[in-house]
Amino acid sequence: MTRMPTRFSGAILLLFAAVPAVRAQTFDPETIPATYRQVADRLIQAATANHRAYARLGELVDRFGPRLSGSESLEKAMDWSRAQMQKDGLENVQSEPVMVPHWVRGEESATLIQPWHKDLAMLGLGGSIATPPGGITAPVLVVSSFDDLKAHAAEAKGKIVLFDAPFVTYGQTVRYRTNGAIEAARAGAVASLIRSVASYSIYTPHTGVMRYDSTVTKIPHAAITVEDAEMLHRMQDRGQPVVVNLKMSARTLPDARSQNVMAEVRGREKPDEVVVISGHMDSWDVGEGAMDDAGGAVAAWEAVRLMHDLGLHPRRTVRVVLWTNEENGTRGGEAYARDHEQVLGKHVLAIESDGGVFRPQGFGFSGSDAALQIVSQVGKLLDGIGASQVTRGGGGEDISPMMRQGVPGMGLQVDGERYFWFHHSNGDTLDKLDPGEMAQCVAALAVMAYVVADLPVPLPRGN
Amino acid sequence: MTRMPTRFSGAILLLFAAVPAVRAQTFDPETIPATYRQVADRLIQAATANHRAYARLGELVDRFGPRLSGSESLEKAMDWSRAQMQKDGLENVQSEPVMVPHWVRGEESATLIQPWHKDLAMLGLGGSIATPPGGITAPVLVVSSFDDLKAHAAEAKGKIVLFDAPFVTYGQTVRYRTNGAIEAARAGAVASLIRSVASYSIYTPHTGVMRYDSTVTKIPHAAITVEDAEMLHRMQDRGQPVVVNLKMSARTLPDARSQNVMAEVRGREKPDEVVVISGHMDSWDVGEGAMDDAGGAVAAWEAVRLMHDLGLHPRRTVRVVLWTNEENGTRGGEAYARDHEQVLGKHVLAIESDGGVFRPQGFGFSGSDAALQIVSQVGKLLDGIGASQVTRGGGGEDISPMMRQGVPGMGLQVDGERYFWFHHSNGDTLDKLDPGEMAQCVAALAVMAYVVADLPVPLPRGN
Repeated sequence: MTRMPTRFSGAILLLFAAVPAVRAQTFDPETIPATYRQVADRLIQAATANHRAYARLGELVDRFGPRLSGSESLEKAMDWSRAQMQKDGLENVQSEPVMVPHWVRGEESATLIQPWHKDLAMLGLGGSIATPPGGITAPVLVVSSFDDLKAHAAEAKGKIVLFDAPFVTYGQTVRYRTNGAIEAARAGAVASLIRSVASYSIYTPHTGVMRYDSTVTKIPHAAITVEDAEMLHRMQDRGQPVVVNLKMSARTLPDARSQNVMAEVRGREKPDEVVVISGHMDSWDVGEGAMDDAGGAVAAWEAVRLMHDLGLHPRRTVRVVLWTNEENGTRGGEAYARDHEQVLGKHVLAIESDGGVFRPQGFGFSGSDAALQIVSQVGKLLDGIGASQVTRGGGGEDISPMMRQGVPGMGLQVDGERYFWFHHSNGDTLDKLDPGEMAQCVAALAVMAYVVADLPVPLPRGN
Repeated sequence: MTRMPTRFSGAILLLFAAVPAVRAQTFDPETIPATYRQVADRLIQAATANHRAYARLGELVDRFGPRLSGSESLEKAMDWSRAQMQKDGLENVQSEPVMVPHWVRGEESATLIQPWHKDLAMLGLGGSIATPPGGITAPVLVVSSFDDLKAHAAEAKGKIVLFDAPFVTYGQTVRYRTNGAIEAARAGAVASLIRSVASYSIYTPHTGVMRYDSTVTKIPHAAITVEDAEMLHRMQDRGQPVVVNLKMSARTLPDARSQNVMAEVRGREKPDEVVVISGHMDSWDVGEGAMDDAGGAVAAWEAVRLMHDLGLHPRRTVRVVLWTNEENGTRGGEAYARDHEQVLGKHVLAIESDGGVFRPQGFGFSGSDAALQIVSQVGKLLDGIGASQVTRGGGGEDISPMMRQGVPGMGLQVDGERYFWFHHSNGDTLDKLDPGEMAQCVAALAVMAYVVADLPVPLPRGN
C-alpha cells in the first residue's frame, strides 16, 4: 500500500486506509491544494525572489549564440549545461548520445531584379537544397494559397512561386513552409518562396523546417519577409513584372553527434518513477534561440535546481531533460523514448516548456480524465501567480514520442501573444523575455513537477 | 474691404461692415464651425468614401521604392508625381530646382568576431565616411550615454565605441546618432556604433542623418539593432571580450539636381495669398519610405486634388508642395523659403504632414495666439473623425525655413505610437499604414487648408 504523506488529513487517511492498494479512484484530488499549499508557496517564493533563471539564460545564449543541430555551438552549450548541473549539485547528471541531422545554411540571398533592385531579406528553410552557384533568376508567380496555386498552375512552370499566405494560426499557415516546395515543384516551379510564418513583422524573415517528397523534384525553398511578400503581390496585381534572383548554398551533411543532457532530484521513495520536465536546447541558426527554447530548457533546469536547493525530495524522481534537435528532426525526443522504452511505464508525467517563458497561465494536459482532475487540483496551487489554468490538450514536440507510448504529457501555457513575432527569426533574443515572467514559469514548472512527483498515487493512465 | 462670404450670418456681416478693413480682432472665430460645417463635411465625406489616397501611395512607393536625395528613384518619383498632378487637372503644376546632398551607402557590414561570429544587421548613418577597404577590426567599448563615455574615456582609444542608449524620446535619444561620431572620436575611438533609435525592435536597424565637427577626426558611424546593442552590452558586463569588424564604403558625391514639385487650387479672390500643404518625397534608402513620408506627401496632394474634384476654390490659393531632401539637408524647404522670400508675407499658413498618416488626432500650431484661436475653431470641424485637437507648437522640418521668416506653421498630429518602430528602417513599408486612417488624414488636411484659405481674414501674425 502506498504510504500516505504525514501531512494528509486524518479524514483522507481513513478513506485510504479502507482499501488494500491506493487506486486513483480512491484518492481525492481535492485534498491536493490544502496538502501542498505550503511547499508550493515555498517553491514559488524561492523562484520569484530573484532573477537567477534569467541570468543563467542570458549567460547561455550570449555565450553560445544560436544552436542549430549539428553545430559546435549546440554541443558547447550542452557540455556547459552538463558541467553547470554538476556544479549545481544535481544528481545523475548525464548525457545520452543522439545522432542529429546536420543542415548548414551557407551563403544565401534573394534579390529583386525587376521592377527595381532590392536586396530582399531572406532565410533559407531548414532542409532546403541549394540553387546552382549563380542562383536562379526567374519571374515570380505570387499565390495566396495552395488552391490559388492550383488555379494558376498553368502559369507556374519555370517560375519562382511565392506563397503570400497571411498568418491565420501557426498550424494553418505553416503548411506553406513545410509543403510549399513540394506543391510548387509539382506545378513546375524552379524554386519557391514563402511569406514568413509570422503574426507581425518589422522586416524580419523567419526560418523553420521544410520537407520534400520523393515523387517530386526538389527545388530550393526560402522565406522572405511579410513586407516583401505583400509588396511583390501588389506589384503582380498592378501588372508590374516581378523578377527575382535566389541564391542558396545550403547543404545537408552526414548526421552529427549530439546529446540530450539530463539531471535529477531523486525520488525519496520511488526513485524509478519519474516526472520529466524539459525544454529543448537546439534552435535555428538565427537570433539567440532565447525564447525558442533556451528559456524553456533553463526554466525546467532551474525548477529542478530549486527543489535541490530547498532540499525537497519528492516521493518520485524529477528529471530535467534538455533536448537536442527539436527543430529539425525530434531526434532527441525519439532517442529518449526508444532508449527508455522499458521504463516508460514508470514515467508518471512528461512536461515540456516550448512556448516561450512569457507570463505563465497554466498547463495543457493530455492524459486520462482522472489524471486531468488531479493535475487541475495541482494547478490551483499556482493561482497566486495567475497560472492555475489547466486545460485539456497539450504536450510538446520532444515529449510526443513518449506520449505516443502512453506517458501523460503536459505543456506549459503562457501569454503567447508575441510568440510568432520572434519565432525562428533574428528577433528571438534575450530581451524579448522578462526576468519576472521567466521566474514565474520556473515556479509553475517546479510546483507542477514536484507535486505530481510527490502524490500518493501516480497519475492514472487510460482514457 | 474684404468681401464677406455669402454664407456668413447677418449678425457677423454687421460686425464686419462696421470696420473699413477686416482685421483679425474684429473677426469672431467662433462663427467658423457653423459657417464651414457643410463644406467641411463634403470634404470629409469625399476623402473617406474610398481608398484612393492609399492606392496612389501604393503605386508611388511600389513603383519607385525608397527615394534618397540624389537617387534616380527620387527624381523618377518626382517626375511621375508632377505628370500625375497634370492628369489630375491641378493648376500651376511645376517643379522648382534644388541642389541636394548626394550620399551613397555602398556595401557595408558589421561582424561580431569575438566572443562568437555573427553578422550584425547594420545600417551606416547618412553622411558617414567609409572605413578602409578591409574594414576596421577593434575591441568594442559599450557606453550608455555621453556621460558614461566621459567616465570611460581612458578606455576608448583605439576602440569602436557603441552607444547603447535606450530610447527615451526621439529628441533625447537621436543625439547619439547625430553627434555620436564626434564624441567617440574626441575620446580616441576609431569608429562608432549606435543602438538604433527605435522605440521597439524585431531586429531591424534604423538609419538617419549624422554629422561631423571640423575640429575632430571623422570616423565611420553606423547603427546596429537594439537587440545586438543590448547583447554586446551584456557581454561587456559579463567580462566577455567583444570584437567587431566594421566595413563601410559610403561616399559623399557632388550635390545632385533635384526638385520640389508643386501644384495648386488657385484662390478665387486672393490667388497671391497662399496656404501651403505639404509632405516630403525623399526618404532614406531603405524600406519604401511609405510612412516617412510618401504618406504625408500623397495625403497633402490628395487633399488638393479633392478640392479640385469637388470644384471648391477657396478665397486664397492652396498649394501642395512635395519636398525634396528633408532627410539629410532640408534643401527643399530652404530653397522654397529663399526663392519665395518676397512673397512669404502672403503665405498665410504652411502645413506639413510628416508624422505618418496614422489615425489623425488634430494639429500642432506655431503662430500667434489670435491665429491659434482661429485654427482651433477650424479644428472643431474635424470632431466627426476625432481630429479636432489643436495644440500649441508644431510644424515640420521642411516648412521650418518659412516659419523662421514669420509664416505660421502647422503639423498634422497622428497616433504615433508605432512611428519609431519603423522610422528610417526597412520596416517603413506600405503595409504599416491603414487605408481608412490615411483617408482621414487627407480629410483633416483638406478641411484645415481649405477653411484657412477661405476665411475672410488671413491668420494674424505676431505673438
